[in-house]
Formats: sequence, C-alpha cells, structure tokens
Amino acid sequence: MAGKEFFTALPVSEALEGFQPRRRTGTETVSRADALGRVPAAALTSGAELPGFPRSTVDGFAVRAADTYGASDGLPAYFDLIGAVRMGAAAEVALRPGAAVQIPTGAAIPAGADAVVMVEHTQATLPEMIEVTRPVAVGEGIVRADEDVAVGAEVAPAGRPLRAQDLGLLAAAGVTQVEVFARPRVAIISTGDEVVDPSVEQLRPGQVRDATASALAALVTEAGGEPSPRGIVRDDLEELTKVLDTAVHDCDLVVVSAGSSVGARDETVAAVESLGEPGIYCHGLAIKPGKPTLLAECSDVPVIGLPGNPLSALVVFRLVGLPVLRRVGSIEVAPAEPTMVATLERAVPSAAGRLDVVQVQVRDGIALPLFGFSALLSLLTSADGYVVIPEAATGLDAGATVTVTAYR
Amino acid sequence: MAGKEFFTALPVSEALEGFQPRRRTGTETVSRADALGRVPAAALTSGAELPGFPRSTVDGFAVRAADTYGASDGLPAYFDLIGAVRMGAAAEVALRPGAAVQIPTGAAIPAGADAVVMVEHTQATLPEMIEVTRPVAVGEGIVRADEDVAVGAEVAPAGRPLRAQDLGLLAAAGVTQVEVFARPRVAIISTGDEVVDPSVEQLRPGQVRDATASALAALVTEAGGEPSPRGIVRDDLEELTKVLDTAVHDCDLVVVSAGSSVGARDETVAAVESLGEPGIYCHGLAIKPGKPTLLAECSDVPVIGLPGNPLSALVVFRLVGLPVLRRVGSIEVAPAEPTMVATLERAVPSAAGRLDVVQVQVRDGIALPLFGFSALLSLLTSADGYVVIPEAATGLDAGATVTVTAYR
Repeated sequence: MAGKEFFTALPVSEALEGFQPRRRTGTETVSRADALGRVPAAALTSGAELPGFPRSTVDGFAVRAADTYGASDGLPAYFDLIGAVRMGAAAEVALRPGAAVQIPTGAAIPAGADAVVMVEHTQATLPEMIEVTRPVAVGEGIVRADEDVAVGAEVAPAGRPLRAQDLGLLAAAGVTQVEVFARPRVAIISTGDEVVDPSVEQLRPGQVRDATASALAALVTEAGGEPSPRGIVRDDLEELTKVLDTAVHDCDLVVVSAGSSVGARDETVAAVESLGEPGIYCHGLAIKPGKPTLLAECSDVPVIGLPGNPLSALVVFRLVGLPVLRRVGSIEVAPAEPTMVATLERAVPSAAGRLDVVQVQVRDGIALPLFGFSALLSLLTSADGYVVIPEAATGLDAGATVTVTAYR
Repeated sequence: MAGKEFFTALPVSEALEGFQPRRRTGTETVSRADALGRVPAAALTSGAELPGFPRSTVDGFAVRAADTYGASDGLPAYFDLIGAVRMGAAAEVALRPGAAVQIPTGAAIPAGADAVVMVEHTQATLPEMIEVTRPVAVGEGIVRADEDVAVGAEVAPAGRPLRAQDLGLLAAAGVTQVEVFARPRVAIISTGDEVVDPSVEQLRPGQVRDATASALAALVTEAGGEPSPRGIVRDDLEELTKVLDTAVHDCDLVVVSAGSSVGARDETVAAVESLGEPGIYCHGLAIKPGKPTLLAECSDVPVIGLPGNPLSALVVFRLVGLPVLRRVGSIEVAPAEPTMVATLERAVPSAAGRLDVVQVQVRDGIALPLFGFSALLSLLTSADGYVVIPEAATGLDAGATVTVTAYR
C-alpha cells in the first residue's frame, strides 16, 4: 500500500478536469448589503431603465440644438432664459424655440430640449437672456434615459461573485435582495496521533500543534466557503470513519489532512472507501509537494485527503481543493490572481510529467527559490508567492523568466 | 469657484505622497481564528522552537550515520532492531552503536540517532534485524528541533495583513490571541438633492438611487475597513456641516460623495473648511475621471470629497482613497493586485500631466477601452479591469502593450 501512490499519480490537469463531484449548494436570499462576494444564482436584471430620465452631463443650459447653428464668439446665438431645473425634480418648464433653461449636472432635461450647452460656452450679458458662443449637436450634454441600463438588461451575471461596482449598480436599480448560491460548508478534519489542538500550551515530546486546520479554514473563507472545523481524530479507523461519515452527511465538501506516516495515510483511504459510492477517484497526484493526495466522492460530496505535512497540504488545497470548492459553490469565474514576472535566481530541477510548485521570495525582480523539507511551514510564510513548473518541463534554468503567483 | 479646480489640479503621485493625515487606529486583541486579514500591531514571535524536537522526515529506521558507512546492495550493513518510535510520543529507547529503531514520518528521533534510513533502502531478512543497503549522512532524514522556527524568531511581521499560512504558523506556535490595529471606521456620506436611498421603489422624475455608498462600503470592507454609512444629506450647508462634524469625531476616515452639480460640490468644500485645521490639502486632482476630488484633514481625520457621479467616485476612491485607508489602519503592505498584459485595441488619448484611468474589457489578449459618460456605472460593471495612462504620457497608441489591473 505504501508504494501504491507512486505508481498511480495522476497529472493535476487531468484530475482537475476529470474529478467532477455532483454536489452543488442550494440557493438562499441575502440582502444587497451582505452580498459582497456572493454568487448570484441567476443573472440579475433591472426592472426599469437607468438613469430613468434624460439627464444633463454638464452645468449649463438646455436648448434645441438647431437654435445654436452657426453660433460663435463673434456672432453668438441669443436665447430667452425662461427658467431653471432643480436637482432631483422634474423640469417644470417646457422649452420653446429660441429659449433656454438653466440646468445643473445630473438634472432632468426639460421637454422640448435636445442638447445642453456648457456654461463655459455661454455669456450672460442681459437679464433673462443668454448668449451661446458655440453650436451643439443633438444629444450633446445629455445621457439618455436608458443609456446606463435598459429595461430588462443584465446588471450582474450568474456565477460571478458580486464586486463593489456590481453592488453599486444593483443599488441604482433598486435591487434590495439577491438570490445567491449558499456558501459551501467545508468540513476540516485533522488526523494524526502526534497532532494536538493549537490551544495546548505545553507540548509533550513528539507532539505538534495542528497548523493545517487553521490555515485551511482561512483559505476556505477567502474562497467564499464556510469552514466547519471537526477537530483532530486519532489514528483509528473506526473513529475516523465515524467523523467522516458525519461530515459527508452535513457538509458540501470534506477535507482531511492525513497523518504524516504511511499507516495514518492508509487509514484515511480505508475510511473513505467504506463511505460508499462512487468512492475513490484517485490516490496520488503528480505534484510536488503533495503526491499522496486523495480525491474521492462519497454520495455526491467531494472528499479531499491532503498530505500530512502543513506545507504540502496547503499547496495542494490551493491548487486542487479551491477549484473543487468553487465548483460546489457554482462559482464560474475564478478570482484573478496577482502575478509578478521575475528572473529565476538559480536552476530548479523537476521531473517530466510532474507539476512542481516552488515557493519563492522576489527581490528586485529576482525570484529566489526557497527549498527545504516540505513540512516547514515557515517556508510558506516567508515566501512572496510560488512558481509552477508545468508537467511538460524538466526543470527551469537559472535566469529563466518566470511568472510568480503572489500571495496576498 | 466652478473653474478653480481646473487650475489647482495636483498630480496624483504628489497627492499620495504629500497627503499624510496623522490619524492611526488604535489596537485591539482578537483571537487567531478571527485574525485573517488583520494587521499585527507588532511583529509576532514564537516563544518556543518548532517543531520542538528532532523529527523524522521519512518512514524508516533511526541509526547512527557512521554505522552505515560503505553499505550497498551487495554488502549491506546489519543492524539490531531494538524498538520502534510511536507517533506523538517520546522515543522510549536510546540507540546504541550498531542498532536501529523503526520510526514513522513525523515521529521523534531517539537519543543517540543522528540520521534516518528510508524504508526503501532497507531489507528485513531476519527477525530483530535489518539490512541497510545505502549509506546515510549525519542529519539525513531529520528535521532539527528549531529548523522551522527558532526561539524568538518572527512568525509574522507587523503591518502585513495575516494570510492563511501565517495563521497556520501562529497555530503551530501556540499563539491564540493577536494584537492588531483596529479596522479603520469609515464614514460614508452621500449628498445631493437628486439622490435617494436605494430602498426607494418608485422614483420621482429627476431622482436617482444612491449607488456610490453601497459600492464604497464594499471597497472599504475589502480593504480591511469598517464602513459606517451616514445616509444622504440634502444640498444644505448647515446640514452637511453637522453630519461631517459628527463623522469627523467618531470615525477614522470620512468620505463624502458630493452632489453632481457645481453648487453641491462647493457646499462640500465650504463644510469641510468650517471643520477646522489643517483643513483642505487639495481640491482638484490631475486624474480622469475624478478631477473634482477634495483631500482634507480635519483635526487628524482625513476627509475625502469624491466626485458626484458613481464611476468617478469609485475610480478615485480605489486609487487615492484606499491608500489613505491603509495608512490610517497601519497596513504597510498593500495587497498585490492581479494584472494582465494585453494589446490595446485602439488609441486612447490623454493629456500630459494627467493620470487617465481607462476601463477595459479583455478578450483573447486584446484590451478594448470602454468609453462613455463617466456617470455610467454599467461601464464599471462590464469592465474586466482598468489601464492607467501615466502622467508623463500623452496617450497610448493602438497596438500598445498595456498592463490591465483586473477587477476581482
């Protein structure tokens, strides 16, 4: 069993495409104020046109464009000033030929007007009269009633997490409630006889505090999920099976960080196998670090078995677990990742057919690979980001141009 | 007054450097579980070394490296198997020369051992005995007791928002509480007689719902601040002054989206001027959109007056307001922004000395500039990101290579 994973390691790209658990979260209604980052279950449309009335884009005078024909500094066009539009109110006066109505930016265009002359292109030499010194075209200085949003137009697509500007447009459209997909509830289970709760002050020899669960919970939260911590399970098949069974029944995704030793890893496999169909999708991914990763589907719930050491677990969860979480939560648009282009400081070897994830620090455009035993979490906290060496490559040369995905 | 801003427009870079309000938030203690994205007030250090004991990195046998000298497949070295180490417990047996102790990955190295031979390089042909077929060097297969973190070493720096992996390392170090800077409390004030609450179902002619406040609240939240919505204030100097005065006294940052018209903008200036020293830093930024931006400091609280239209307000708040928010919250490391390199589909003009922010859609590596009256929020929601044309440039040519900052 110990060596099995080394022979069945699946390429990561193949796993990401082929591992398609059926689970999807249901929908719920949230208020717009709480909808940042939430995922609309259907495209959101506007019931009315926006801004809803023809609006001035400048401070100036509403006119009929035809009346300004040929106007110039030397030969201004004269208009009777017959009123003013107030902000936030309908224009109380209708325009007649040869007349102008004073209008501030954002106010409603009066009936009969088809353009607005900027105040900078006018002169007020006589009371009740203005001179226009430049002609305007029809529509100039005006936003149409439906220019921002037409009736029935989409204001936010389904499947894309709502951004600040989306919430702004929803507010403008008077949308107060949004139907969204529920956050995927993610069970986080730690295993290993050596692992104790982070609150334990005095460790006994051989014990380590659980680092993985805290970091996984943070990654789940960032990705729009709801972590459901399940604590630490002893290396005991019966106990692990019980905890897993409960998690599969009340969560949308289950993540198990296996104990470090071969025995503990085997127990995770055995426990998952006992939980039902369709069962294990793959055990072993062609990724470094993270080879002993397990992907399974129990009932329709995806179960991800992560390597025992924290660094490997976090690397794999970021690259493989988050796409699964997004799928379960119907997030169709993955968030754009910040990247930097840098020059690799020294050569990094890699095996063909294996995805290598190399932690790097970036200083003045130079990416310095951080090496070390993969259980060292400090390697992740001191990294600025990581470089992925694709499966086809057999390493990167010193001086190679690399794209670093930056940690935020 | 209307034209004043056009003559005093300050370069954005100069404003970002020169506008240095003194306000900083205080500190508070939060539990590690709630500390994602929070900003440590001081560097966090570990009271103990990590992992805390020398640990095996492989499944195998703890030995004295010297005893494996010259071992090979043809001439294996023989060891007495004198015991096994259990996970999570101290090794109960000490090593003597010529002996080996079975050990799983992650377990504590027994006294007297200085290396671990991988199980793959051993054979068990006789009971109580193993054959080692490859020599190991001192330290091989072992993580030192302080290799991850030394006593007193920094596990997270001050001023950098805590990331998932930081929380993992803090958990490993047994840190349960973290002293962080309080989230900046940001008053969000909307003004304008035409602006009504987004919950208003039936608009009267000339009215628009407040889009800016909802979007600003989301940007503030994303950046680690705590939005404090103050509703909509009529275009009335006395009322605005009262609301501003309250906000300056109970918030760390005040943002006012001014009414669209010149009159409303002037009222914001007048109200801010009445609030006290040092007062207005600049009125007018060399940025498009967003020229009528106001930067002020009342007592020690920064006050940012944004343009009346939502798109301009959001563009300016993102580029100018968020850096101010981060400064107030002592966030020293701005989050890395996702970017894409693209080819500009057509020329974009710009005035020298002015920063232009152009919304773009990106399709197959081509950046399509979105143009339109800057009050159209739909322009922002349909954009994938934006291109900044720096102050020194007089526009970008069609076919130019541009860096698009992507909206997440």
